[in-house]
Amino acid sequence: MKCPGVWGMLTVTMCVVFLGCPQAQELQGHVSVILLGATGDLAKKYLWQGLFQLFLDEAGKGHSFSFHGAALTAPKQGQELMAKALESLSCPRDMAPSRCAELQAQFLRLSRYRQLKTAEDYQALGRDIEAQVQQEGLREAGRMFYFSVPPFAYADIARNINSSCRPGPGAWLRVVLEKPFGHDHLSAQQLATELGSFFQEEEMYRVDHYLGKQAVAQILPFRDQNRRALDSLWNRHHVERVEIIMKETVDAEGRTSFYEEYGVIRDTLQNHLTEILTLVAMELPANVSCSEAVLRHKLQAFRALRRLQRGSAVVGQYQTYSEQVRRELRKPAGSPSLTPTFAGVLVHVDNLRWEGVPFILMSGKALDERVGYVRVLFKNQAFCTQSEKHWAPAQSRCLPRQIIFYIGHGELGHPAVLVSRNLFRPFLPAQSWREVEDRPGLQLFGRPLSDFYAFSPVKERDAYSILLSHIFHARKESFVPTEHLLASWVFWTPLLESLAREVPRLYPGGADSGRLLDFEFSGSHLSFSLGQPEQLVPGPGSTPRPSDFQVLSAKYRESPLISAWPDELISKLASDIEAAAVQAVRRVGTFHLALSGGSSPIALFQQLASGHYGFPWAHTHLWLVDERCVPLSDPESNFQGLQAHLLQHVRVPYYNIHPMPVNLHQRLCAEEDQGAQAYASEISALVTNCSFDLVLLGMGTDGHTASLFPQSPTGLDGEQLVVLTESPSRPHQRMSLSLPLINRAKKVAVLVMGRTKRDITLLVSRVGREPKKWPISGVLPTSGQLVWYMDYEAFLG
Amino acid sequence: MKCPGVWGMLTVTMCVVFLGCPQAQELQGHVSVILLGATGDLAKKYLWQGLFQLFLDEAGKGHSFSFHGAALTAPKQGQELMAKALESLSCPRDMAPSRCAELQAQFLRLSRYRQLKTAEDYQALGRDIEAQVQQEGLREAGRMFYFSVPPFAYADIARNINSSCRPGPGAWLRVVLEKPFGHDHLSAQQLATELGSFFQEEEMYRVDHYLGKQAVAQILPFRDQNRRALDSLWNRHHVERVEIIMKETVDAEGRTSFYEEYGVIRDTLQNHLTEILTLVAMELPANVSCSEAVLRHKLQAFRALRRLQRGSAVVGQYQTYSEQVRRELRKPAGSPSLTPTFAGVLVHVDNLRWEGVPFILMSGKALDERVGYVRVLFKNQAFCTQSEKHWAPAQSRCLPRQIIFYIGHGELGHPAVLVSRNLFRPFLPAQSWREVEDRPGLQLFGRPLSDFYAFSPVKERDAYSILLSHIFHARKESFVPTEHLLASWVFWTPLLESLAREVPRLYPGGADSGRLLDFEFSGSHLSFSLGQPEQLVPGPGSTPRPSDFQVLSAKYRESPLISAWPDELISKLASDIEAAAVQAVRRVGTFHLALSGGSSPIALFQQLASGHYGFPWAHTHLWLVDERCVPLSDPESNFQGLQAHLLQHVRVPYYNIHPMPVNLHQRLCAEEDQGAQAYASEISALVTNCSFDLVLLGMGTDGHTASLFPQSPTGLDGEQLVVLTESPSRPHQRMSLSLPLINRAKKVAVLVMGRTKRDITLLVSRVGREPKKWPISGVLPTSGQLVWYMDYEAFLG
Repeated sequence: MKCPGVWGMLTVTMCVVFLGCPQAQELQGHVSVILLGATGDLAKKYLWQGLFQLFLDEAGKGHSFSFHGAALTAPKQGQELMAKALESLSCPRDMAPSRCAELQAQFLRLSRYRQLKTAEDYQALGRDIEAQVQQEGLREAGRMFYFSVPPFAYADIARNINSSCRPGPGAWLRVVLEKPFGHDHLSAQQLATELGSFFQEEEMYRVDHYLGKQAVAQILPFRDQNRRALDSLWNRHHVERVEIIMKETVDAEGRTSFYEEYGVIRDTLQNHLTEILTLVAMELPANVSCSEAVLRHKLQAFRALRRLQRGSAVVGQYQTYSEQVRRELRKPAGSPSLTPTFAGVLVHVDNLRWEGVPFILMSGKALDERVGYVRVLFKNQAFCTQSEKHWAPAQSRCLPRQIIFYIGHGELGHPAVLVSRNLFRPFLPAQSWREVEDRPGLQLFGRPLSDFYAFSPVKERDAYSILLSHIFHARKESFVPTEHLLASWVFWTPLLESLAREVPRLYPGGADSGRLLDFEFSGSHLSFSLGQPEQLVPGPGSTPRPSDFQVLSAKYRESPLISAWPDELISKLASDIEAAAVQAVRRVGTFHLALSGGSSPIALFQQLASGHYGFPWAHTHLWLVDERCVPLSDPESNFQGLQAHLLQHVRVPYYNIHPMPVNLHQRLCAEEDQGAQAYASEISALVTNCSFDLVLLGMGTDGHTASLFPQSPTGLDGEQLVVLTESPSRPHQRMSLSLPLINRAKKVAVLVMGRTKRDITLLVSRVGREPKKWPISGVLPTSGQLVWYMDYEAFLG
Repeated sequence: MKCPGVWGMLTVTMCVVFLGCPQAQELQGHVSVILLGATGDLAKKYLWQGLFQLFLDEAGKGHSFSFHGAALTAPKQGQELMAKALESLSCPRDMAPSRCAELQAQFLRLSRYRQLKTAEDYQALGRDIEAQVQQEGLREAGRMFYFSVPPFAYADIARNINSSCRPGPGAWLRVVLEKPFGHDHLSAQQLATELGSFFQEEEMYRVDHYLGKQAVAQILPFRDQNRRALDSLWNRHHVERVEIIMKETVDAEGRTSFYEEYGVIRDTLQNHLTEILTLVAMELPANVSCSEAVLRHKLQAFRALRRLQRGSAVVGQYQTYSEQVRRELRKPAGSPSLTPTFAGVLVHVDNLRWEGVPFILMSGKALDERVGYVRVLFKNQAFCTQSEKHWAPAQSRCLPRQIIFYIGHGELGHPAVLVSRNLFRPFLPAQSWREVEDRPGLQLFGRPLSDFYAFSPVKERDAYSILLSHIFHARKESFVPTEHLLASWVFWTPLLESLAREVPRLYPGGADSGRLLDFEFSGSHLSFSLGQPEQLVPGPGSTPRPSDFQVLSAKYRESPLISAWPDELISKLASDIEAAAVQAVRRVGTFHLALSGGSSPIALFQQLASGHYGFPWAHTHLWLVDERCVPLSDPESNFQGLQAHLLQHVRVPYYNIHPMPVNLHQRLCAEEDQGAQAYASEISALVTNCSFDLVLLGMGTDGHTASLFPQSPTGLDGEQLVVLTESPSRPHQRMSLSLPLINRAKKVAVLVMGRTKRDITLLVSRVGREPKKWPISGVLPTSGQLVWYMDYEAFLG
């Protein structure tokens, strides 16, 4: 255990508490393994073999075992089915056949079938295990229940185990659960709550079998064992992108009843690819073999994932999928499925290490090849002085530098860890990884295999056999704790919901898909590289589209009106503000901009932050039009929106930012703290003639603007520049610029968006100047200009 | 003329003033061209041919011309030399030989030699021009003086022209100047001031002949004519890097007397490559044919260049250079020249469009090929779903996308504009650019020529003939105004100074240099990719190097002392602060850090900003230990250092930043504004028990710390948490945390660096607790921990 830093001298105890790794004591004794669903596909294909491997690995080390294959089938028939499943157990290649036969026979003697259906069956199981342990004079070490059954059966089994099959004190209980773990955040939460009523968190082992794949399981050890080289490289300064890819050639035929419910994102992205992502992105704990530290850091990585938007993903569906669904699920023709069989998702990790680095997740069925990999591509930060023909591929820093965890299949055909030779020579433990021989002609990721240090496992091992061993050794870092599961669903559920009614792009499948599924990103927005091909999917019909309209110029209340679809309206307003700013700075050196809160301005802030390179931020002063009487850091604060969507992204000097002083002397908007007066004098001191260059306002459905509400006793007239007001809605207390101050501005822009504004827009168009009834009607700059910006929904509705 | 934005409606007049382009009236009439240095190399090689071209282009359009070749040589001999220079004038290829001969004869008739040596010679010239104009009944349009002479001759000639050769009212005077324009900022300023006493700015045309190279001259028109495609691409979101490269195969042999004085940076980077850089980086004016707008935007680009550091450049010298210098300049052996013949420089443009985009400038002699180009490489923001073997090179967005302005030579052999076909089809004016035919087998920038839309000039034209035409048409945007020249020297001079004593890396030259000159960058630091090869340059001898020492741990004044070389010391302190922050946030959710101003902390801020990804900034509160009574935005303000070197680069929420309120009610540190009390109550409200998690202090040579000076009546004891104090040095007024408040901190780190601190370090090590004499001696946290961080110079000195 390492205590970082000099402060450790004083705080050794603290370090132990926070950084120490509680090691599970591995007590020797008898272990009962109960495989529920012992005659099912997964058991036949992987689990029995995995248990046999566990037996081979551990039986000689002081443990004794018994294996209970369980299912609902009656004993005799079940016994037969299980015997069949156990026929093909295989030993490691280097084991003598006679020794193998002997061990197989031992394993079969320890394995028996039992029907587990009723509460009595479970009670009997519990009794039998106890009896066996006593009879044979053994100490019981623990019991492992492997749920290889559909999730609807979980609750019953869990209840029975909890009430009848818990081991006595000192022995462990481990229940192993297989996906799916819910369908969205809510269902996952419900399932977790239900299981939580029967089991402790530390008793549950949720399997994501990708965590047992050798290349995936090597990610953290690799990062740990190559810290020296990676420490300076594993961050946004050096990583250009991370690709986490799982391509399949098979389609969903025969499995559509499952697939229709889930789709590719729930099937592979929410679990496998996200788990891998966190292994790549997480901060490396000092001790990677400490489960608790690994899981804690991994959870932090989950929580640092930036919320996905609809625009973070592209989805596709292979062309014959709908037909397969109709056939297998006997659905009527004409109701095409919207289930995606392909998805590309752009993920950002919102911390200083990864800010701005794109993590590309992609998975799909019916693609041109079967392959899975994680590719970390480093930025090219070199300049090679000589002509390219003189570059030495294994040395030149100008050729691609990458690290690939190759999960399997693909052109290479086996798991591997690849490191570009122009990067560094990696360390991998020689007992489990060996260097791969060159295969001339083989190109991987744009370079010949000989350009990489390439390592493959000495022994290829199945993921389940690795995971069973990890369960046995309580290596919880290879499993999915409840908190992680829910964090993953919190991340994916909003995207799944926003995609629910999205028509996926159809693709022919295989190599025929050509560039149809290629996608690209700009900022955090993802889109297909090719426009929607018309022959595959019909257009959205006769609905008018934004591009069918021009930005409309007209008059509203005798002032210029700009009207357009939302995106164009925001673009236009942003450009107009920029032009005003450039002009003001050129003329007098500064630009004083007063901004309102709310959701429409946020789109504007984002536009200004991302697209306006010429904006003179260094010379712009930002003021608030109004503020809620909450602390500035409160999510309700108008200032928060400004901070999150604008200030984080542009360089406005600290002292040019002027939040309203709603929170003085640790109270909110107390009259006696004179916050309004303080803001007024700040304005008087800095803004010539108290005339802002531009004031951005909104309009409420009741005709309010700024925080000036109908019938407000303050702010609608008089001398005060800044006032305290009351809002009819919470939080009631507000601070606001006054109407007289607003009307001194050189320019006032009123932004009105959305169909909820239709009625008030119509009404206000007809009334005179009656600020007591409709404060917005009192906005009329004395010598400045007023412009209305309304989207079509607010204006034409 | 376009008035951007809706505000234009009100401000049409304003727009005219600011955006209109004052067009020079081209009055027809007689033009006298006086070529000074008419028998020199440049004149023979380019200028006479350029003047002949000017005559061909313009003589038919209503102007009449006379050409005066001038030099110091006596008339007869000069005449002969000039006649020789005029022998080889050539006509365009498509002109009939008879027509060509006729025009050549006309030109010769208009050209005469004259000796210009004395003031009388110039007076005679002035008189002769006037006489000729009168005699022939012409209107005089203007006079062009081309200074093809060494700079030491400038002043004399300029004085004579100014006093004797100015044309009458209504006609223009244009003087054309050739580099070098000074040797550094000071000399350039002196030269400019001198010339400015004779000529108006608009009369001077400083030639950078690279601005006349066809590919370079096409940069702005290309950006203008392809605005639609480039608008969204030409920025930091899409550009990965810009390379501006000028490689030569020749060396400096025969020219070392010039080269020894200048070196590669002055010879090509300060002028040619920087001019090109600004053409790429500048904001595009609405009207690119408006000289005034182009120059204004270009100047802004110069001013946005981030200051270069020593670490921004790598320099080299070809191995035989020193020997050539010794031979040609007859220098003694053993004093090797430090003049660089190769330089790579990393430039950053500090505005929102280019923030973070590396501009790589590279130039050198004796390299493996002769080539010049500007390469804009775009980021790969696509993911191609199919296996690489299915990609279509001309379409796939996953292959490199680049735009190249190919200045000439190299494998292509002629000027060109290249645009990757997977980017967009560019527009180039068909009358001057045509598509290049494919040359199978030719690879450029990693891709076959067929991957590009490639255009070359219909007619290859020499840079000087283009520039002479631009002078004639007063297209000042092709020349270097004084402000630009000085801005460029402001940019380059500090680097040149810091390189003055640097030993350049020796390289064998040609292809033999291998990877010796490859370089790479990390942040804004550039370094050679290969370590210094020992056989070429001896090591720095017996001076101990930082790596020879370990970080030293010991005691100082009974508290732990960390001592190391400066870089390591700062690293260690930064790590220790991060560890303390992580621990505090984990324990209580926030970390309260109080920082001092000054230069040592700035290195710390930079370290924290660039290397500490795990730092919990979102939960950190930043306080000031002390502040000078100046506005926060004053460069003297401690807060400014914090803002520039830390806050700009990390995400600390606005409301977690706590500058000292030294500037209330528009006054500085007035007692009655109670700033110190306000800061104290902010601390009381937010910091539990007023106990900061960490306070960073420094120590002055007089033993002061924070802004607590010897004999201070306030702050050394008593109840006050924050006090106003007086410093013996300017600005005198300060605000400071008090000693009792500092001593309540959980951790106090004192950072002491540099040899100026040796004496006080020794003294303070010996004294007791006497804060009145040495305030630093009063630092002793009541229940917290004190650690001293001293570099070897301060401690061991």
